[in-house]
Amino acid sequence: MGATQKADPREQTLLRMIALLEGAAAQGATLIIFPELAFTTFFPRWLIEGDALDAYFERSMPNPSVQALFDRARELRVGFYVGYAEVTPERRRFNAAILVEPNGSVLGRYRKVHLPGTREPRPNTAFQQLEKRYFEYGDLGFPAFRAGSDWQSAILGMMICNDRRWPEAWRVLGLQGVELVCVGYNSAAYDPNGGASEDEALRTFHSKLVAQANAYMNSTWAVAVAKAGDEDGSGLIGGSCIVDPNGRIVAEATTLSDELLVADCDLDLCRQGKDKMFNFEAHRRPQQYAAITSQVGVIEPAFVNIDKSTDRFRAAQPSS
Amino acid sequence: MGATQKADPREQTLLRMIALLEGAAAQGATLIIFPELAFTTFFPRWLIEGDALDAYFERSMPNPSVQALFDRARELRVGFYVGYAEVTPERRRFNAAILVEPNGSVLGRYRKVHLPGTREPRPNTAFQQLEKRYFEYGDLGFPAFRAGSDWQSAILGMMICNDRRWPEAWRVLGLQGVELVCVGYNSAAYDPNGGASEDEALRTFHSKLVAQANAYMNSTWAVAVAKAGDEDGSGLIGGSCIVDPNGRIVAEATTLSDELLVADCDLDLCRQGKDKMFNFEAHRRPQQYAAITSQVGVIEPAFVNIDKSTDRFRAAQPSS
Repeated sequence: MGATQKADPREQTLLRMIALLEGAAAQGATLIIFPELAFTTFFPRWLIEGDALDAYFERSMPNPSVQALFDRARELRVGFYVGYAEVTPERRRFNAAILVEPNGSVLGRYRKVHLPGTREPRPNTAFQQLEKRYFEYGDLGFPAFRAGSDWQSAILGMMICNDRRWPEAWRVLGLQGVELVCVGYNSAAYDPNGGASEDEALRTFHSKLVAQANAYMNSTWAVAVAKAGDEDGSGLIGGSCIVDPNGRIVAEATTLSDELLVADCDLDLCRQGKDKMFNFEAHRRPQQYAAITSQVGVIEPAFVNIDKSTDRFRAAQPSS
Repeated sequence: MGATQKADPREQTLLRMIALLEGAAAQGATLIIFPELAFTTFFPRWLIEGDALDAYFERSMPNPSVQALFDRARELRVGFYVGYAEVTPERRRFNAAILVEPNGSVLGRYRKVHLPGTREPRPNTAFQQLEKRYFEYGDLGFPAFRAGSDWQSAILGMMICNDRRWPEAWRVLGLQGVELVCVGYNSAAYDPNGGASEDEALRTFHSKLVAQANAYMNSTWAVAVAKAGDEDGSGLIGGSCIVDPNGRIVAEATTLSDELLVADCDLDLCRQGKDKMFNFEAHRRPQQYAAITSQVGVIEPAFVNIDKSTDRFRAAQPSS
């Protein structure tokens, strides 16, 4: 999807999404993946409070402001993944996604685990990244869902944006035999405050690289879908791609605008990896992975053999 | 390194390794990475027993048959990683690697955790993959080592071959702040028994892909080094590469023969990732990763909403 500006009415955004959905259905697609926070601009770039913030959140899914998309999908017998900002009746807020099957039933819900950014606004900058302020950490884990017959009983998983850079998220899905992972994202193309940082090409390379390698290492299809382009003065990378279980890109976006990528995802292509190279039962050694779940941050090895005669010794100190 | 045939005398192999070491030292390298099982042919491709098998194993490291390499490295004030088959005084056998510092001291030892292949030989095939028969699973975890001043107090890690396809291995090193991961490998270029399988180009792509993505996701340099070419009638991929903490290949092999790749690995390039995008302390959520250490194999979600009216329903059954 191309950018969605703050001033864009919901109806306009929904019409764009329905047009994409209809185009995909016309090409035979049965699963359509929309981006993270697909119905709005990426609002965590601003400090917003009160009613103005509430306006970005969905109190239920579906709801009247998105119902037309759900209705059209069911009519066309296509399902979809879409990301949105969720507020619960208890006023809990999550960066969420939903998988809706072609028959209209909700197959599963997901709440983003890996929230980037900060809780406190950075002073004197035009743009923020306040996901840690606006959202709670996802509390549903990384569940995989067994689809119904419209989707050939596929095992499907969801991630949102930054999750895709964390191999733990992929592996938890892989351990459930996932065959296709849906990822929507909004990823900055550059530092919108003008700081020195990776350029857009490198950021797009990173985005594809993690989808490709994690798809391969978990023998799964991966579909990573951007909201792209200039959004309210802040640039978002494109790079949407469909990746096969060998980690090869089989379709990729060429624009930063609304654009359809369609691929035939043969789920049986997952078997080669799952049964041989990545046969987890035969080859994983969890007794050697303890640190992954027993610690959060880095614990560096202590210094040894310190040679005080040289000035090449670095100043860093061990964190434990 | 190019191939080493079964018939090649150890002295000849050692001379090749010393020549590579001298060439690297002449270009200013201080750390030289040799492949897995660097002193011999990749013997797990055959069923071997008794004294014939013992001939491939090192009873100590160093030992007289490799001492010349250690001596020359110390003379030139360069260190190295090298893979070898280890047999302990208790007759335990491991697929092992060692890191030797420029001053000649042993910085660390590693024993391969992710053993591919089988324990029992496959009948009626010319070639085997018997690593699970010849070696015990590594019992040292994935330790990172703090180097001395010759290596700027770098935090170094080791893997061997198949380990590099397992993101858990990289993450355990990443959680120790690793700045450079050394990986030696012998990876088949095709099925030596003539079965249908991935072609050499795809296998080489996989090898680079996992080094690149895991280097990026752990903000570390990675150096992946093949033993390559036709070894006793069985082909090995090349694709040796030096990867920066952004996952970019900065040097890669162009032949399947003895070949030097040299790069200046600025360890400070690890900081951008470790401090921001991959600041583990700020962003990891281990409470959501439990399955990674609590289960070995796949547990698929159960079937739901089974639609008996369609024949598109797949025959697979859940494993739990």
